[in-house]
Amino acid sequence: MMKENRIHNFNPGPAALPLPVLEEIRESFLNFRGSGMSITEVSHRSPWFDEVINDAVARTKRLLNLNDRFHVLFIQGGASMQFCMIPMNFLKEGQSADYVDTGTWSTKAIKEAQILGKTVNVPASSEDKNFSYIPKDISFDRDAAYVHITSNNTIKGTQWGSFPDTNGVPIISDMSSDIMSREFDASRFGLIYAGAQKNIGPAGVCMAIIREDMLEMIPDTVPSMLKYSTYASKNSLYNTPPCFAIYTVQLVLKWIEESVGGLKKMAEMNQKKADLLYGFIDSSDFYRGTAEPDSRSLMNITFRLPNEDMEKRFVQQALENDLGGLKGHRSVGGCRASIYNPTPLDAVEALVDFMKTFEKKG
Amino acid sequence: MMKENRIHNFNPGPAALPLPVLEEIRESFLNFRGSGMSITEVSHRSPWFDEVINDAVARTKRLLNLNDRFHVLFIQGGASMQFCMIPMNFLKEGQSADYVDTGTWSTKAIKEAQILGKTVNVPASSEDKNFSYIPKDISFDRDAAYVHITSNNTIKGTQWGSFPDTNGVPIISDMSSDIMSREFDASRFGLIYAGAQKNIGPAGVCMAIIREDMLEMIPDTVPSMLKYSTYASKNSLYNTPPCFAIYTVQLVLKWIEESVGGLKKMAEMNQKKADLLYGFIDSSDFYRGTAEPDSRSLMNITFRLPNEDMEKRFVQQALENDLGGLKGHRSVGGCRASIYNPTPLDAVEALVDFMKTFEKKG
Repeated sequence: MMKENRIHNFNPGPAALPLPVLEEIRESFLNFRGSGMSITEVSHRSPWFDEVINDAVARTKRLLNLNDRFHVLFIQGGASMQFCMIPMNFLKEGQSADYVDTGTWSTKAIKEAQILGKTVNVPASSEDKNFSYIPKDISFDRDAAYVHITSNNTIKGTQWGSFPDTNGVPIISDMSSDIMSREFDASRFGLIYAGAQKNIGPAGVCMAIIREDMLEMIPDTVPSMLKYSTYASKNSLYNTPPCFAIYTVQLVLKWIEESVGGLKKMAEMNQKKADLLYGFIDSSDFYRGTAEPDSRSLMNITFRLPNEDMEKRFVQQALENDLGGLKGHRSVGGCRASIYNPTPLDAVEALVDFMKTFEKKG
Repeated sequence: MMKENRIHNFNPGPAALPLPVLEEIRESFLNFRGSGMSITEVSHRSPWFDEVINDAVARTKRLLNLNDRFHVLFIQGGASMQFCMIPMNFLKEGQSADYVDTGTWSTKAIKEAQILGKTVNVPASSEDKNFSYIPKDISFDRDAAYVHITSNNTIKGTQWGSFPDTNGVPIISDMSSDIMSREFDASRFGLIYAGAQKNIGPAGVCMAIIREDMLEMIPDTVPSMLKYSTYASKNSLYNTPPCFAIYTVQLVLKWIEESVGGLKKMAEMNQKKADLLYGFIDSSDFYRGTAEPDSRSLMNITFRLPNEDMEKRFVQQALENDLGGLKGHRSVGGCRASIYNPTPLDAVEALVDFMKTFEKKG
């Protein structure tokens, strides 16, 4: 159906972006900051783009309170490319790494390490209950090269509330679906990576935040484009970066910092949105949340209706009411509302109103 | 300096885009084709994006007259990522590949294969004359896994006028800086790849055109994101692709097909632009082309002025006259006008006028 106006967008990624960001991109699209060129036309080795990438890096460091030991990198290929880069860079022969399996994306990360012939241990998995929870009290291997976790599980609707004690072993986390959604202590992480297209930007760029000591582990036999050190030593400008995507990330970070007021405020807003939606689901006998309450994601709210027929009608009628992207992932079915940073509270209010109406009228 | 209007853009990449393409992006930026979302917000698994990527593939096949044996793929990481993917996919232990060295990018492609411990032969190089020409009469190894060439050398200003006979060995060509600029017989190529940010789009996506038989050579030990077969079997949608960049490519291809009138017309326009600029350089004693006449690129016109001081002033004064991006690559110096597909004839006319004035007044 053709929409004349913008809809409430609950897509899991690519996902909603802040309207002021989209408006600023449109406004300056033919002449970027007095360059006489579009942001898609300026050189990546120009003062215009230097300002974009340096500002994006500086804002990331401020927002996450990173010290000087961290590098902020922009890499192509999404989180999926990180799944192979990580073992290529950090897992030598004779070593092993611990991967916690919390569903789809964790499972893929494990698979890619195994394709490379690397030794992976899985000290904890929630597969026994269809990945509906985050494992607790995990015993990690003190000699592991690293511990890999997925901080938020987009498809299963679960999220690590706090991060595990790994006995000093560096944590590597895929934060694609909750980066910049809350405050946390980054210092225990060796590497944080996040495809931008959920919380901080459009598809086409992956942010990687790497701690200095990790760069020393990288063997010479890794191709230049697959080495984190290549990006760290060249401020992500070894070759032409995805300029437009990085520019959009810059604007979203600026929006988080200046309009929202930082990560504490961002987290409060995200909590409020999730509380509203979970609160309604819990008060209803018609809708049923699928994740265990203590493992619920604040980003991806997964729920079921009494039967699949109703779920189909729900998604369809929601779209007719300008609420898009509510279908669950094809691998699990059901419904899902993704409410990342840019999703405003009024979108969630509109969704809850619709859910009430649908429950009554069907 | 702040420009109120758009300038003539001779950047080597990211480079000029057709104005109608930029205008269409801006026009629909808040609501893409009735989706109620920006192109940066729609799902890559939606009918809206399916139409984008399928149309981009169909136009590529029509424009290059590709038969059913070819797959058109969209991969992240630019041509530089291809430099490692190619030997990982196609060069097994015990085999060797022939790489022709025509400067910077060819040299990098060779280096990446060597980092992986692969055996590379260089049957021809133009290093003896600072890469100012394309080698002729090359004897290729009949047993090579493939022959790698760089069809246009952005930095050195040279271009293959016709493609070499390789005795049936598949040719792999980096066409980043001349894809879609002319007609050619694709059937002898096993793989053609091109970072989009010169002739067909913005930075952030690399087009790869691969022949069916090449897909059978790929070992299982290559990670999913680095295997061409992953992209070929999923229409480049194995994971979230760089949606905005692919969309822009689609619009540029549409512009080439529908506004320009196809590759024959595109080539005529490119020839006309290059003739105008080379014709003027050859008629002048002040400017001097650096590439050998029979190896000259129609895309990147490299030239020198009597001394470096003048070159500096030339680039600076050109920009004051709304002619941007004329500085030669930092590794070779001098001046360079990149006149890819989107650069209109009047930009080249304005450049020649300025060159005449500068020669007189300095």
